[in-house]
Amino acid sequence: MTAPSYHVLGIGNALVDVIAQAAEDFLLAHGMRKGGMALIDEAQAEALYQEMGPATEISGGSAANTLVGVASLGARAAFIGKVKADGLGHTFIHDIRAAGVTFATPAATEGPATGRSLILVTPDGERTMNTYLGAAQNLRPDDVADALVRDSAITYLEGYLWDPQDAKAAFLKAAGLAHQAGRLVALSLSDAFCVDRFRAEFLNLIRSRTIDLTFANEAEVKSLYQTADFDSAVAALREDAVLGVVTRSEKGCLIITREETHAVPAAPIDRFVDATGAGDLFAAGFLFGLARGLELPAAGGIGALCAAEIIQHLGARPEGSLRALAEQNGYPV
Amino acid sequence: MTAPSYHVLGIGNALVDVIAQAAEDFLLAHGMRKGGMALIDEAQAEALYQEMGPATEISGGSAANTLVGVASLGARAAFIGKVKADGLGHTFIHDIRAAGVTFATPAATEGPATGRSLILVTPDGERTMNTYLGAAQNLRPDDVADALVRDSAITYLEGYLWDPQDAKAAFLKAAGLAHQAGRLVALSLSDAFCVDRFRAEFLNLIRSRTIDLTFANEAEVKSLYQTADFDSAVAALREDAVLGVVTRSEKGCLIITREETHAVPAAPIDRFVDATGAGDLFAAGFLFGLARGLELPAAGGIGALCAAEIIQHLGARPEGSLRALAEQNGYPV
Repeated sequence: MTAPSYHVLGIGNALVDVIAQAAEDFLLAHGMRKGGMALIDEAQAEALYQEMGPATEISGGSAANTLVGVASLGARAAFIGKVKADGLGHTFIHDIRAAGVTFATPAATEGPATGRSLILVTPDGERTMNTYLGAAQNLRPDDVADALVRDSAITYLEGYLWDPQDAKAAFLKAAGLAHQAGRLVALSLSDAFCVDRFRAEFLNLIRSRTIDLTFANEAEVKSLYQTADFDSAVAALREDAVLGVVTRSEKGCLIITREETHAVPAAPIDRFVDATGAGDLFAAGFLFGLARGLELPAAGGIGALCAAEIIQHLGARPEGSLRALAEQNGYPV
Repeated sequence: MTAPSYHVLGIGNALVDVIAQAAEDFLLAHGMRKGGMALIDEAQAEALYQEMGPATEISGGSAANTLVGVASLGARAAFIGKVKADGLGHTFIHDIRAAGVTFATPAATEGPATGRSLILVTPDGERTMNTYLGAAQNLRPDDVADALVRDSAITYLEGYLWDPQDAKAAFLKAAGLAHQAGRLVALSLSDAFCVDRFRAEFLNLIRSRTIDLTFANEAEVKSLYQTADFDSAVAALREDAVLGVVTRSEKGCLIITREETHAVPAAPIDRFVDATGAGDLFAAGFLFGLARGLELPAAGGIGALCAAEIIQHLGARPEGSLRALAEQNGYPV
């Protein structure tokens, strides 16, 4: 086994975020579940867009955000995801490459438009997402370049990817290739309702060791084990997962192995603006730390720093150098 | 003369801003004039975009930003400008309408793409713009709806519009219609190098009273009168203009009539992020105050507040309600 060319490879939905401020009433009137992600079709996306306020467009996608964070920390990062060769696709490709992430998945020339997530940010900073997957749902096993997976220390998959059939197959292909090459596979559970739809499958992925590292937030781990009791959910995850990380917003995170638990506090912030990308950027910092061979608590600390950076501005792509931020806070980068 | 339906109508280039952070070196390497606006063609726009960092897309356009500000203050606002029926055009139309501005200029179905301004924000918060006008340069006299101009208390024109021939004709048509209906016509000089290109024409517009109210910043008024001495430039503007407003960044502004001068201080800010839109939003507040019949210093004070809001975040569209901001600061709105 040779040293991998990439520290982290992400595979996920390639999306552009369309972010607008919204009142609580707007969510209520549209029957939206605050803080969650709902899948919508193209007609719904257009209808909702017409009702939304003035918006800001920033490239997004959960795993894509994570890989941009990994690159910003100074590690070698790659991403696989599907856009169409249209305006938003052009934007997505520009932004991820300009962030220093290797991205070479061919854009679709026909079929649905580049996917987008219509994100409503309420005055409390919480984000509610309505996602039209568009071209992203047509990610296929062929798009998973074998050599790229083999050549990455960690392959990181987003749970959102588990929705479309072809993407599932691409997901499993990537996990298989990674393990054949002796690499690690990580999964974010992405969303509590996503877990609700695919609970048995996600549990099977974890228990079968298709996944080595599982990221979840409190709601997701509770949904996974169908319990309202956080400690019970954590105990169950400890039994099932090789390595688990549970993020808890301002309460920091728990890093869980069979033998030990590390509690890492959240990093301080000046102002809370927009929760979009908090989990994605936490994962960026943690994966970076892991790929660099840091101790688990240090990896969690970098994750907390990255999450703190992203929630202090609009959008889920870092505005400054995360490497500089980690250095300022005394982490070896 | 009946009461107008709109407080302010803006006519200008319909653009989407593509905003990225850049180092000072990037400007030097590309021979850019910091703080200014350069016109570029489509190929140059694509080449520059490829070299720029990850970007945020926010609707822009100088007069369009101003009219969004006027609407955010609670006044009735309308805008005329040209986009193409493409992705960015769709974004522009959505955003300006969602902001409460009446916008009905038909989108072009052929010809160049929707215009965009590639904006590089340096670490000092200064913005340097490279604008591909695209469809915006095809604004024609036919696009200036006669009834809309007659029905607006103030018609506000951006100096940038004076570049394309058809847009110049549209500009003059609008000014003529407004005056026939007994309305006011305002002009922003937009950019010092824009003034340099069209000095004689701008002076003629002001001296012939085609323009009633002239907005300029320090560099623009000095360029207009080809002097390095600010006081001389102001004295010359006082001779030529019915009403002039000269903005001076952190030094506030001067409001100048034949008889009097009012100095209005800048509004305090917590953090300076991005100068984009400072002049546009100052104009919004001032025009709003004028349309509401406030005294000139109060109009300038609202302008200063709006400018302070816009420079504390990325982009030139307000993030919160300017009406609420003006109210909190004791202005009658």
